[in-house]
Amino acid sequence: MNIEMAIDTLWVLLAAMLVFFMNLGFAAVEAGFARTKNCVNILSKNFIVFAVSSLGFLFLGWGIMFGGDNPFIGTKGLFILTGNIDDSVYTLSANVPFWAKFIFQLVFCGTAATIVSGAVAERIKYISFIVFSFILTLLIYPVVGHWIWGGGFLSQLGFMDFAGSTVVHSVGGWAALAGVIVLGPRFGKYDKSGKIHPIPGHNMSLATIGLFVLWLGWFGFNPGSTMSMANPGDVAHIFMTTNTSAIAAIITSTIVSWIFLGKPDLGMTINGCLAGLVAITAGCAFVDVLGSLIIGAIAGVIVVFSVVMFDSLKLDDPVGATSVHLANGVFGTICVGLFAKEGVTTLSTTNGLFMGGGASLLGVQLIGILVVAAFVLPASLLVWVLIKKTIGIRVSLEEEITGLDIGEHGNLAYPEFISRKPGYSAMINDEPESKVAVKGGIVNEAY
Amino acid sequence: MNIEMAIDTLWVLLAAMLVFFMNLGFAAVEAGFARTKNCVNILSKNFIVFAVSSLGFLFLGWGIMFGGDNPFIGTKGLFILTGNIDDSVYTLSANVPFWAKFIFQLVFCGTAATIVSGAVAERIKYISFIVFSFILTLLIYPVVGHWIWGGGFLSQLGFMDFAGSTVVHSVGGWAALAGVIVLGPRFGKYDKSGKIHPIPGHNMSLATIGLFVLWLGWFGFNPGSTMSMANPGDVAHIFMTTNTSAIAAIITSTIVSWIFLGKPDLGMTINGCLAGLVAITAGCAFVDVLGSLIIGAIAGVIVVFSVVMFDSLKLDDPVGATSVHLANGVFGTICVGLFAKEGVTTLSTTNGLFMGGGASLLGVQLIGILVVAAFVLPASLLVWVLIKKTIGIRVSLEEEITGLDIGEHGNLAYPEFISRKPGYSAMINDEPESKVAVKGGIVNEAY
Amino acid sequence: MNIEMAIDTLWVLLAAMLVFFMNLGFAAVEAGFARTKNCVNILSKNFIVFAVSSLGFLFLGWGIMFGGDNPFIGTKGLFILTGNIDDSVYTLSANVPFWAKFIFQLVFCGTAATIVSGAVAERIKYISFIVFSFILTLLIYPVVGHWIWGGGFLSQLGFMDFAGSTVVHSVGGWAALAGVIVLGPRFGKYDKSGKIHPIPGHNMSLATIGLFVLWLGWFGFNPGSTMSMANPGDVAHIFMTTNTSAIAAIITSTIVSWIFLGKPDLGMTINGCLAGLVAITAGCAFVDVLGSLIIGAIAGVIVVFSVVMFDSLKLDDPVGATSVHLANGVFGTICVGLFAKEGVTTLSTTNGLFMGGGASLLGVQLIGILVVAAFVLPASLLVWVLIKKTIGIRVSLEEEITGLDIGEHGNLAYPEFISRKPGYSAMINDEPESKVAVKGGIVNEAY
Repeated sequence: MNIEMAIDTLWVLLAAMLVFFMNLGFAAVEAGFARTKNCVNILSKNFIVFAVSSLGFLFLGWGIMFGGDNPFIGTKGLFILTGNIDDSVYTLSANVPFWAKFIFQLVFCGTAATIVSGAVAERIKYISFIVFSFILTLLIYPVVGHWIWGGGFLSQLGFMDFAGSTVVHSVGGWAALAGVIVLGPRFGKYDKSGKIHPIPGHNMSLATIGLFVLWLGWFGFNPGSTMSMANPGDVAHIFMTTNTSAIAAIITSTIVSWIFLGKPDLGMTINGCLAGLVAITAGCAFVDVLGSLIIGAIAGVIVVFSVVMFDSLKLDDPVGATSVHLANGVFGTICVGLFAKEGVTTLSTTNGLFMGGGASLLGVQLIGILVVAAFVLPASLLVWVLIKKTIGIRVSLEEEITGLDIGEHGNLAYPEFISRKPGYSAMINDEPESKVAVKGGIVNEAY
Repeated sequence: MNIEMAIDTLWVLLAAMLVFFMNLGFAAVEAGFARTKNCVNILSKNFIVFAVSSLGFLFLGWGIMFGGDNPFIGTKGLFILTGNIDDSVYTLSANVPFWAKFIFQLVFCGTAATIVSGAVAERIKYISFIVFSFILTLLIYPVVGHWIWGGGFLSQLGFMDFAGSTVVHSVGGWAALAGVIVLGPRFGKYDKSGKIHPIPGHNMSLATIGLFVLWLGWFGFNPGSTMSMANPGDVAHIFMTTNTSAIAAIITSTIVSWIFLGKPDLGMTINGCLAGLVAITAGCAFVDVLGSLIIGAIAGVIVVFSVVMFDSLKLDDPVGATSVHLANGVFGTICVGLFAKEGVTTLSTTNGLFMGGGASLLGVQLIGILVVAAFVLPASLLVWVLIKKTIGIRVSLEEEITGLDIGEHGNLAYPEFISRKPGYSAMINDEPESKVAVKGGIVNEAY
Repeated sequence: MNIEMAIDTLWVLLAAMLVFFMNLGFAAVEAGFARTKNCVNILSKNFIVFAVSSLGFLFLGWGIMFGGDNPFIGTKGLFILTGNIDDSVYTLSANVPFWAKFIFQLVFCGTAATIVSGAVAERIKYISFIVFSFILTLLIYPVVGHWIWGGGFLSQLGFMDFAGSTVVHSVGGWAALAGVIVLGPRFGKYDKSGKIHPIPGHNMSLATIGLFVLWLGWFGFNPGSTMSMANPGDVAHIFMTTNTSAIAAIITSTIVSWIFLGKPDLGMTINGCLAGLVAITAGCAFVDVLGSLIIGAIAGVIVVFSVVMFDSLKLDDPVGATSVHLANGVFGTICVGLFAKEGVTTLSTTNGLFMGGGASLLGVQLIGILVVAAFVLPASLLVWVLIKKTIGIRVSLEEEITGLDIGEHGNLAYPEFISRKPGYSAMINDEPESKVAVKGGIVNEAY
């Protein structure tokens, strides 16, 4: 038995399972934060997106990301499904079998695609989301991945993003923002007088289940990114910084929403926790525990004000994905420049990337953030606009009011429960209580 | 420290936990696909079935399955609870402690029993299901398991079923089919004119949670069946074929239901994913990634038409368990004969079973399928009929209309939510809205 | 690569993830057992409690628990967040990095705090619960932990609690009981004539999800407490005794509730399973499989009668936490004295603690139980009373009737579903159906 490879493979596959499981986390958080009438659609999107991502990454994405050390794009060993695989051409070094490397990277790619799902929820056509996800995972994500994790020019410059605040979260976040811009807000979210109508999620139990699954998944996402158990102290350190940032962000987001919004809103606390996890993802191997506490504490504040800011800009993101993944992905990447310390793990000193913290590293981090933004946002806008011009991007107003579950899938999430939403009730029931529901609904003023 | 045993034990116990967790997956998928009024009953069945299976496998099942190399049944070391355990009499070789072997096999046995639960849902008596599960795990499953994994005559013939398309899924599927036949359809499912009334599941969020948990669990089910990390490349390969089959089946089942049923039905996509996972289970260690893509793609088509076929035969399986586990368990077992290649893993060449693919292997696979069918279906029919003749098998019509939750358990799953089902509502509320609900309910024509 | 440390760290971190995931289990079980109108509050409490516990254990708790071998309290290396960490002063020996030790102990500490949450549900102020949890994890839990696992006087006396029937579960249970006493029962639970009004949980699907997550988590809790894979047989044995106790308790609690309550109540079966898991936690490494079967079988009986007993004492524990964690934590600790055998694992003979079973060990166990009770119950009562006198402990009657979700958080768990609860409906809807709901509600007689 090759002992070291056995241990590393066990660790990488366990971490891959945990990150895979985040698909459930995203599905549950996003569905919980949306309305009953769109629940099946969101579940379906979060479910098929991993299938589509797997295809895209298998067909071409992996090769673009890791196929050789061209500074801008992978060019070697692009096709792995039908060709013979020569692992030596790929730039990802880890002491594990080829398919373990592939699977681990695949689940990260799938996460980036899933992030988009929530932001474009409740009005996007199912097929359009599928097409975008395929292109994102086939081309856009792998190109950025190549620059930072595949030996491309940003990695050569010294840009540091240990587990993907930029590669995964801000790429997903920029793509989501582009979708939000091209789609426009949901009907009823902003009225003509400019007033914002909150649209509460339909199921906070479901959202909370999702949160805990995501948090668990992050213990694969960050510590697993060592892709090795050769230095157990590194793995344990990353586990600790990851958790500490999350709990600090829970506490500050709760306090901030208590003070500024009047009550400790559960949705804000959930997004606060996720913000802390996103923000520590870049630096989890490079900062100490106190640093992670500070990063998380700030992330929990950022997310609350970011949600308010995006709403005031009339950028309608039903689940706060841009605030969680984009704002805090950028923030976390900056934090590496601010809080990184040599020697907290072997990764912060021996991987040839580390430049000692301070101004020079901070500058590189800012360059990387801008470069990624300058590529992913326009590229995503282009793809969304092309989709809009060809197959269309948004369901009809009638379908949006009735709900995408009936319109796109012919299903209802909870066909037996009586709901107070006008369009929803009217669809399946034209009896008196639906009229009552129209009058009694708490968000019906938005219609 | 015995390093190799430590690593293998860690892997086997991790895999066992994942397969154990599939109990939640089955409970959630099945409950989500059923109606509110039977939800507690389905949750209860899926919960207690693992307890009953654990008892059955502990009392006798393990010994029958692995107790010596008699071609037909285990005869040695049958009683492990009270006797001294001599691990050397058992035919399961793995470099892990006895109880790790036992637990790993136990969770597979439990899975077979759980499969039955969904097919017989919404009309079976609680006690009758418990009794059947006990006999299935005490006797029926272990006998088949002995033939294929315990050194019995099918394994000696060269029959190949790596992780249980036949041993677990088709055994569970045949037992489920027998139950469906003896029980008859649910009241209201088929009317006198022969028309089929769809009965939609009450909670697609719950079903989706279950799906992801099952998918995660399969990464223990299939890769874990190596029971060793001695060849990390094998484990990673199996992980990859498992996932690839699942995602291919998601895509084809979605497309097929889109084309033939008009919309991409979420329930069909969920069952498509499960079909892909079941179909790759036999061959995951013997086929390459392209093979797994093809197997999954076909499985996703099979499941949709199988659901339609069983319904047209008036075999009422509320969750599609027979289509997922039986049809695709058989299909996956055949696929070993069609797609197996030497050398894709060490398991496809060195375990002494492999015969080189092609006609001869295909013939053996078909023999194995028929032998298992010829034993499990009649044996299960016999047990179901004996139960029917003694303690009874089906709840009263009145209880079925009212719901098994009140009738069998005295609980309601969601006592505060107002539901539109006539029987359900009438049970807890004779106020006007229940009459409205009778008129407005989308499935009430079935009553 | 330090192979042994790598394997042990992988195992400890995996186990820590599983125990962390129990936070979801507790959140789901407790929320499912409570009413819709308090669901957000319970989810919020179970979510923030791990953040608060992490802070408390990081600031001081760890140091008090493991900082040196003073018999009564840790005195060395108290502050780990800001100081340099010298692992050698701590009494927890395991061949893993410092932060792996910390994280593993942290998730156990968090579990003790979470246990309290359910017992005080549906009437406690959010801020008051947060303050109590912080003090519990900063001071009370670590002191007991020091006595038993940190080298303190009870461990020196020979007290044996392998994975925490006393340290975690009865500490959480005594703290919960103290909260129940100081808070008083929920409005409507007991009327003036002394009649007990059952208040059914709002979502048994959610509760069942939670149960399975907790059961899974226990496979980290108990087997993980080896903190090493050096003896794989020990780990597998503990896994087996843990599962066997759980399944025995499922079966007996089902039978007992069937006989004495008339039906196999799902809630009782869930609490039965948890009771079996709590009861085996102390002895899982010291008893054989038959012993674990007996322990679990008795635990399943105890929990049913304990629930009835606490109710008859008008100690209102909405989820049965005191019956599960306190009654069975005590019972499980006693069982070590009754069922422990030398040689079932290496832990039962070589750790220097074991005294050979029988009378002397039983005496020590009883002393430990009494000492812990004599400290935790008064200390918790004191803290609860201090909280009551300062910031207040209980929400207003009006808020309690309306629901804590609106009162404490400004959220509703399911804002679109129409509910039959008077206070809840009236809050969001003054239309006719709410009046109907008042009349039709099954628990409204309690109001």
